[in-house]
Amino acid sequence: MNNREVMLKALTGIKLVEPGDDLGAITVEAFATNGVQPRTGDVLVVAQKVVSKAEGRYVEVAWVEPSERAITLAAKLGKDPRFVEIVLGESKRVVRHRPGLLIVEHRLGFVMANAGIDHSNVSTADGAERVLLLPCDPDASARALRDHIARNCGVLIGVIISDSFGRPWRKGTVGIALGAAGLPAVIDMRGRPDLFGRELRVTETGFADEIAAAAGLLMGQAAEALPMVLVRGLVWSAPEAPAAALVRPAEHDLFR
Amino acid sequence: MNNREVMLKALTGIKLVEPGDDLGAITVEAFATNGVQPRTGDVLVVAQKVVSKAEGRYVEVAWVEPSERAITLAAKLGKDPRFVEIVLGESKRVVRHRPGLLIVEHRLGFVMANAGIDHSNVSTADGAERVLLLPCDPDASARALRDHIARNCGVLIGVIISDSFGRPWRKGTVGIALGAAGLPAVIDMRGRPDLFGRELRVTETGFADEIAAAAGLLMGQAAEALPMVLVRGLVWSAPEAPAAALVRPAEHDLFR
Repeated sequence: MNNREVMLKALTGIKLVEPGDDLGAITVEAFATNGVQPRTGDVLVVAQKVVSKAEGRYVEVAWVEPSERAITLAAKLGKDPRFVEIVLGESKRVVRHRPGLLIVEHRLGFVMANAGIDHSNVSTADGAERVLLLPCDPDASARALRDHIARNCGVLIGVIISDSFGRPWRKGTVGIALGAAGLPAVIDMRGRPDLFGRELRVTETGFADEIAAAAGLLMGQAAEALPMVLVRGLVWSAPEAPAAALVRPAEHDLFR
Repeated sequence: MNNREVMLKALTGIKLVEPGDDLGAITVEAFATNGVQPRTGDVLVVAQKVVSKAEGRYVEVAWVEPSERAITLAAKLGKDPRFVEIVLGESKRVVRHRPGLLIVEHRLGFVMANAGIDHSNVSTADGAERVLLLPCDPDASARALRDHIARNCGVLIGVIISDSFGRPWRKGTVGIALGAAGLPAVIDMRGRPDLFGRELRVTETGFADEIAAAAGLLMGQAAEALPMVLVRGLVWSAPEAPAAALVRPAEHDLFR
């Protein structure tokens, strides 16, 4: 099944999210102030950063005691050993490193720089330095937001928690799906015939990643100012799958 | 600068493209039959396959004499040595291989399976097997189509030649830009302040790749039936850069 027209709309006027904020309530309010009536088939893409903030996923850097391993690695990287300690705490293992760059396998399987920990936009009133971890379970965050919208708006839409990832081989970051609910994050095309009745060569598409990349065009790098994008017009028939299904198992991977 | 609303529209009714077809004329006709009046700021995404077909980038498999190297590699892969020969002829080097899978660095720098050579959807009237190479110079193909549209529609739009790539670490293919004209394929954010006046951590975004991924949502895997998607509503201020700028130089890459 294919879609003919898709519309993406950034929801505006969303306040800066703080720990303890009710992201569900903020979302429902954003729908109202933007004149959006969510419909079946809609997908809401939410920037990871506001989800992490609402979930209070901060770590105070000053409280961190770096391990020997973090101190050694930090010296090679030219990074703060406490920051490296926090990254290692969120990671299964280090995939690559060089001065200034630390690529790890996050505990959820994402291969990414710094375990996705952001320390560029984080500040506190008293000036203490803190960093923001990824949501504990982004698929669960997506499900919870989907349920909240269903209860309050009476419609089950798709929800994606998105982030920007760098890629090997290609420059520039693109949006990807860290979490997803209510849609097939991966679509398995195996066995489907192509136009000529032959079996398709490509067997899986990263549906939620393509949606997150599309939303990235509207969020830009200002994902805190424009943290939510509504996508309308997508059609799918594949069964639901969470964003965890987008993670290639390490044993099938040639680049770890 | 950020966009608030973006619309994607798949152009329908486009005939199956054959070698020698005038892709520019097909595009202008598709605009007309779909009621599309192209505007400044529009971006047209065109599937690689129809560009390659119009450019006649076919190779007859029966005419290929495999080298010793191709024969040896083909035995390890379980692939046709003539197909492997064609892939190697389009490649700078082999990046990874295992039975059934051949990842190369294409002569244009793309790290991809089978040098992007498609042999699933290719057939000829007499049943002879032929495969389809990538366009010779996708950035030039994009520029030529852009110029044709400008001459015939009186407006300079952006053009992207897209393909679907697999990724390491993540399952499923996503749309990427092989060629681009009239837009910044990569946007360099270095030095730009974030919301809090601090310098942005992310320095480059893969703008054309995000657009190609968005268009992939509409093309699906039926890129021959729906090979063109018009994207409207994007705003950018960065200088133009071709898709070649998306290729990370091998010396800056940790995964080759």
